[in-house]
Amino acid sequence: MTVDLTTFETVCQRMRQAALYTSSADALEWDERTGMPAAAGEYRADQVAELRSAAHALKTGAAYGEALATLKDQLDDEDPHGDISTTIRELHRDWCRDSRLPVDLVARLSVATVRGQQAWDAARKNDRFGDFRGALEQIITLKRDVGQRLAEGTSSSAYEALMDEYEPGASVAALTPVFADLKQRLTDLITRITDAPRQPRVELLSREYPIDAQRRFSAQIAHAVGFDFDRGRLDETSHPFCTTLGPQDCRILTRYEANWFPGGFFGTLHEAGHGMYEQGLRDDWFGLPPGSYVSLGIHESQSRLWENQVGRSLPFWKWLYPSAKSAFPDALDEVSLDELYFAVNHVRPSMIRVEADEATYNLHILIRFELEQALISGDLSVDELPMAWNEQYQRCLGIQPSNDAEGVLQDVHWSAGLFGYFPTYTLGNLAAAQLYAAAVTDMPDLEHDFSRGEFERLLHWLCERVHRHGRCYSGAELIKNATGDELSADHLMDYLESKLTPLFGL
Amino acid sequence: MTVDLTTFETVCQRMRQAALYTSSADALEWDERTGMPAAAGEYRADQVAELRSAAHALKTGAAYGEALATLKDQLDDEDPHGDISTTIRELHRDWCRDSRLPVDLVARLSVATVRGQQAWDAARKNDRFGDFRGALEQIITLKRDVGQRLAEGTSSSAYEALMDEYEPGASVAALTPVFADLKQRLTDLITRITDAPRQPRVELLSREYPIDAQRRFSAQIAHAVGFDFDRGRLDETSHPFCTTLGPQDCRILTRYEANWFPGGFFGTLHEAGHGMYEQGLRDDWFGLPPGSYVSLGIHESQSRLWENQVGRSLPFWKWLYPSAKSAFPDALDEVSLDELYFAVNHVRPSMIRVEADEATYNLHILIRFELEQALISGDLSVDELPMAWNEQYQRCLGIQPSNDAEGVLQDVHWSAGLFGYFPTYTLGNLAAAQLYAAAVTDMPDLEHDFSRGEFERLLHWLCERVHRHGRCYSGAELIKNATGDELSADHLMDYLESKLTPLFGL
Repeated sequence: MTVDLTTFETVCQRMRQAALYTSSADALEWDERTGMPAAAGEYRADQVAELRSAAHALKTGAAYGEALATLKDQLDDEDPHGDISTTIRELHRDWCRDSRLPVDLVARLSVATVRGQQAWDAARKNDRFGDFRGALEQIITLKRDVGQRLAEGTSSSAYEALMDEYEPGASVAALTPVFADLKQRLTDLITRITDAPRQPRVELLSREYPIDAQRRFSAQIAHAVGFDFDRGRLDETSHPFCTTLGPQDCRILTRYEANWFPGGFFGTLHEAGHGMYEQGLRDDWFGLPPGSYVSLGIHESQSRLWENQVGRSLPFWKWLYPSAKSAFPDALDEVSLDELYFAVNHVRPSMIRVEADEATYNLHILIRFELEQALISGDLSVDELPMAWNEQYQRCLGIQPSNDAEGVLQDVHWSAGLFGYFPTYTLGNLAAAQLYAAAVTDMPDLEHDFSRGEFERLLHWLCERVHRHGRCYSGAELIKNATGDELSADHLMDYLESKLTPLFGL
Repeated sequence: MTVDLTTFETVCQRMRQAALYTSSADALEWDERTGMPAAAGEYRADQVAELRSAAHALKTGAAYGEALATLKDQLDDEDPHGDISTTIRELHRDWCRDSRLPVDLVARLSVATVRGQQAWDAARKNDRFGDFRGALEQIITLKRDVGQRLAEGTSSSAYEALMDEYEPGASVAALTPVFADLKQRLTDLITRITDAPRQPRVELLSREYPIDAQRRFSAQIAHAVGFDFDRGRLDETSHPFCTTLGPQDCRILTRYEANWFPGGFFGTLHEAGHGMYEQGLRDDWFGLPPGSYVSLGIHESQSRLWENQVGRSLPFWKWLYPSAKSAFPDALDEVSLDELYFAVNHVRPSMIRVEADEATYNLHILIRFELEQALISGDLSVDELPMAWNEQYQRCLGIQPSNDAEGVLQDVHWSAGLFGYFPTYTLGNLAAAQLYAAAVTDMPDLEHDFSRGEFERLLHWLCERVHRHGRCYSGAELIKNATGDELSADHLMDYLESKLTPLFGL
């Protein structure tokens, strides 16, 4: 390879500097969503906007772009997935993307989304969509502008260009038939399950689970599966998420409800899965493509795999059952292992995406996928959104939210400007099932580990197959290399059928 | 006034931008000292250094300095304490000071002090001064360099130039005799008290005070005296402090010990006093001199006034006694109001500055004042420091620490590069007594308020006399305007004599 290493080092140094600003802004946003005083929001938005502008200025800049173009020309095909090739290829890709966005648009979007999240949080608490309406409209206008600028001169729509930020290479045209097929197969399965004579006692999960006890229990399980608390924290917030504030500083956030055990527990496992991906990235490449996650779909595959393939498996509950009984002696008094296992695998159409079961979950995503395309294209106005939301729920899940707080206001995403983000959740579910099947093929006795509370082999496998590669391979390439196949819906459907069919006595 | 308002606005805008970086760095440091994962320290130091460098670059810069010089030339004597005059005068002063320090020195100091605080925290926990030694030596070398650069061309010593950052206008020559006089009068009083036949039952305060109950109680009192939780938070850390992360975001931090009630309680009142000063500054001038605190001595006067003149008064305890009894029923069972009031006003030489009583407190400061002058001048080496510390304690207080953790490692200041900071504590004590005496002169029935749990009149008085002026007047001018007198030790000695003499039956 004939790459000029001095130029290469300069470029890396600049991106490491940008990462200092980005990660500082992420820290301020973490604080905003954990404990910042209510009145401090306005100034916080200014702080975050300033830091993100500084990062954006470093990531754009004509001379920097030229240096990347020169480096890219020097690359040969010798080691396309090596760290140096990856760094140059991906930074050049990022530069082309970022340079299309003027600094002031980025700054306005940053302010609008910080304020948007504040407005959303208040609107959700008070169940008043009107309090969020204006902020959302502003965000959509700005994101449409972003999408149009990114799509200019390509065959992509504005929405597709937005989605490409989260899932590089994904296209609406390719996703639509896969999602349609998945919807059909899921709907069939859910109908069979809904009509099944055997049903779990879901009320077990809505008994009194004291929040203090949930806190201790969740932290203990996050630790047990492999989330490293020396390099991370677990906190609480209104909408769970995972954020990384430095190479040794991953923060996961969850929320507990006293009368709904799965919310906090599986939420924590989910975020711990995200966190372990972040903690499995290589520290020495922090802020650079080889040390960054490859796509949100792959990120979500890690959270869903720990939440579902592991966390809702029988071996896992064989191990956890005694601890759960002792953590929640009142709620689980006289509840058998089989009853508990069946309950955490219940399937029933419900309002809240983050609390949906594995089978209905993807229907929640498909609703959002359709609505957000229409919002960005302008086919749907913000005023029409709440009604459109409710109609979609009626059509897909046969239920309607009783108010906007449990309807259109339930997710933080749009308030944060995350359009094109939702489909990555379903991609993640497909990838989780496919990766897990490959892990079990590689280690046929893997699930014995879980029944002994051991998870190291699985985490190591994921780290070697996924985490450590950063952006050296695309999401699709990672899946192909790890599983031998292209991504498909078959593994998810096989997994659901083989677990749920015996449980519901089908 | 003939000031060019366009230039003035440009200058203000630049400083508002600098404040975004400074306050973001402060937020990262707050996080570092409340809950950041242990392994994250190294990267955090880099983040803080980058943000402080960005702020420093904005605060220096030749063209900016020229703009300030031009504005300063345009100033007449018409309204020297107005917001515009103050902004120009003080920013010019800051610029002259900051421009003497090269960016890389500031950055190195920032890294050294972030790491220094981490090293100190670990050294203190393990009682191993050696683990902090190297970091401290590096900080002293850098601070000496800073002091020498600031003092260049003036008659000040390096130490005095460092002190000027915290207490503009203060000189070692002026302080030394005041402190010597104070030392003499305090030593006399303490000797009389130590020999007094009447002594309080201090053991009341080291009974079991459950930390959860202390947390609730302290937060309730901070709120009652006027700390605004809509614009602030109260958290816990290893060394209490107060920091402001935005115009509506003041954070105070305390620490609780189950077997020492005054530590957490008076610590909280103290930090609440600092916080109320910050919350009393004018928001619309945030990041500019009219909205900034004037000096650390004045800052400390606010914390000490609430901690001591209010918090250790009989009317205050008349009000608080029933709540205290109900918050700590076991510890305060059969303890009378008089006994409790006497106990919180105990006087006895002790090891830890932040837990020292009002009478001995200033002796702790005088020790540090002498030692840090010697460290900066080079008369004392870091290796000699622990022994010199212990000798001073023996000489001034008649006691010796049993280990370095309760000796030389007890304070965070030096690890954070804060040399020249300690004397402001004693200045604050003098100012607190003098301001409080003036408030009582203005409102003779003021203490009746306290016995009803009302503190608004006092807070309002302080806000009008001190807080709202920011840097429009110097600390000395503020005291003169508010009290009619120059700052002296007489008010502190009068206050101590008149409270302690009857209590100890002298």
